[in-house]
Amino acid sequence: MGEKVIINEVGLRDGLQIQPKFVPTEGKLELCQALVDAGVRSFEATSFVSPKAIPQMADSAELYPQLPAKDKVYYSGLLFNEKGYERAMAAGVKSVAVALASTEKMNMANIRMTLDEAITNLGALITRAKKDGHDARAYVSTALGCPYEGDVPVKVVLDLAAKLAEAGADKIAIADTIGSAHPKLTKEVVSAVVKEFGADKIVVHFHDTRAMGLTNAWVALEEGVREFDTSIGGLGGCPFAPGAAGNLATEDLVFMLNESGYDTGIDVRGLRKAVAIAERLTGQQLGGRITQWWLSQEHKKAAEAAE
Amino acid sequence: MGEKVIINEVGLRDGLQIQPKFVPTEGKLELCQALVDAGVRSFEATSFVSPKAIPQMADSAELYPQLPAKDKVYYSGLLFNEKGYERAMAAGVKSVAVALASTEKMNMANIRMTLDEAITNLGALITRAKKDGHDARAYVSTALGCPYEGDVPVKVVLDLAAKLAEAGADKIAIADTIGSAHPKLTKEVVSAVVKEFGADKIVVHFHDTRAMGLTNAWVALEEGVREFDTSIGGLGGCPFAPGAAGNLATEDLVFMLNESGYDTGIDVRGLRKAVAIAERLTGQQLGGRITQWWLSQEHKKAAEAAE
Repeated sequence: MGEKVIINEVGLRDGLQIQPKFVPTEGKLELCQALVDAGVRSFEATSFVSPKAIPQMADSAELYPQLPAKDKVYYSGLLFNEKGYERAMAAGVKSVAVALASTEKMNMANIRMTLDEAITNLGALITRAKKDGHDARAYVSTALGCPYEGDVPVKVVLDLAAKLAEAGADKIAIADTIGSAHPKLTKEVVSAVVKEFGADKIVVHFHDTRAMGLTNAWVALEEGVREFDTSIGGLGGCPFAPGAAGNLATEDLVFMLNESGYDTGIDVRGLRKAVAIAERLTGQQLGGRITQWWLSQEHKKAAEAAE
Repeated sequence: MGEKVIINEVGLRDGLQIQPKFVPTEGKLELCQALVDAGVRSFEATSFVSPKAIPQMADSAELYPQLPAKDKVYYSGLLFNEKGYERAMAAGVKSVAVALASTEKMNMANIRMTLDEAITNLGALITRAKKDGHDARAYVSTALGCPYEGDVPVKVVLDLAAKLAEAGADKIAIADTIGSAHPKLTKEVVSAVVKEFGADKIVVHFHDTRAMGLTNAWVALEEGVREFDTSIGGLGGCPFAPGAAGNLATEDLVFMLNESGYDTGIDVRGLRKAVAIAERLTGQQLGGRITQWWLSQEHKKAAEAAE
């Protein structure tokens, strides 16, 4: 077997949250089960936030306890404040995720905090989670470009990551929230954080908005990173980041990694099934870029069988 | 300015040749002019082959002499035999391209020669072109996977490339004709040929069939390669290689390289115009993967202007 790579599926939260139509809890569970069946063992499962701000996540307290195969699957819950933390604990969450942006304007738009407030408040949540014996991961969003402020200096990303690591974060996730990263920038930022914190501590989160998602992922892999956020069918984006549509699709990255001999533990055929479920739940045509190739192969087989 | 990268535009030949509807010579010239205006300085312009086999290239003798800005633009003509060579010379061709596949079955399907015959015959054409004072480039097709024979050992690619280099080829182009390459394989093959022949002698040609075209290109760039075949709008494929649709789109690679600080000399806005011309000429919706992002940006601007 090849070297292990962790795929952290974010479709249930980051993917679904901008869907205008509420996806019922049983639908989310069906999608999650299909992904677990395909071999996915790490998820951002939901968020504990105001149902007014994000109606799609209003069922987090009901959803979380019902998530399948909890003994072998990692499920994080995203939250931004004490209230969210209490609700998450009540739902049985053992893995907490927090997220701050790299710039003042994006933090204001996304979580209505200044950058200093975000570091203090989210840092305190991480410390609390660790004290309570839980796992904690921290996202540095818009780390490779901000829709409001443009370029983000690498030093800013390193400083923010250091503060989150000091607060106790087990993993630091570097997120290209709006897909503005190009491979040269990715290499610069990822090599810097890997050098500072070690590759084991780093997760990367790319968007395919400008078609460079897979390339950026490969660049991060070459820098030693072995954990990637992806979203089934490319579901999602960020409701407060203009132009953020297009999470890197789980099936695209898994296919490339499997082909390249890495061990994701995930069967792409199972992912196809999950894409179909996500399409039914959202009423949208989904699918990463590899989907077209899958369809052409199936079409060819069907045509041959019909001859 | 950043480091120079050569984009060799193959849309006029590799791109158009499988188009069922004949594109008139003036249409090809219009597309070529738009690409030159955008800054493209290297083309595979046409092929000198049987008009029965490839009707789309029947006008090569008329087209070649009319190609724009010959003093500053490199235009190669693809050919496979003495007759093609004579026709190319009569048309004023100064840069000859030949192509053989890495496997017996693909050579038979594509040019009706055994691999030995292909090496002998095409090698002789290269030697003749060099004796005549011309430039010569040689393609090793299906170098990263064959539709008939599957995996191709790196040693086979190295041996073929060595024979073509011995015959006098100025450049060796390594082609992933069916888009079967994954980045790990690309790294293995490209690093081997770069080590053997030097990065300056190597050109790479990727397809985006399985969504890994840009990633493979980046991997080759990291190995030192500075010349890439691409096709405007992703036009093309190979008529005798099942599943070969999806040349890597010129605009996708140029955009990624420009963003990453490389000097392609090409303006992506000019490429948009060329894509539109190619769409009109072929009656097809074209466009690389970055096109969707361009469209979304333009839609946003138009919506803002309308407010």
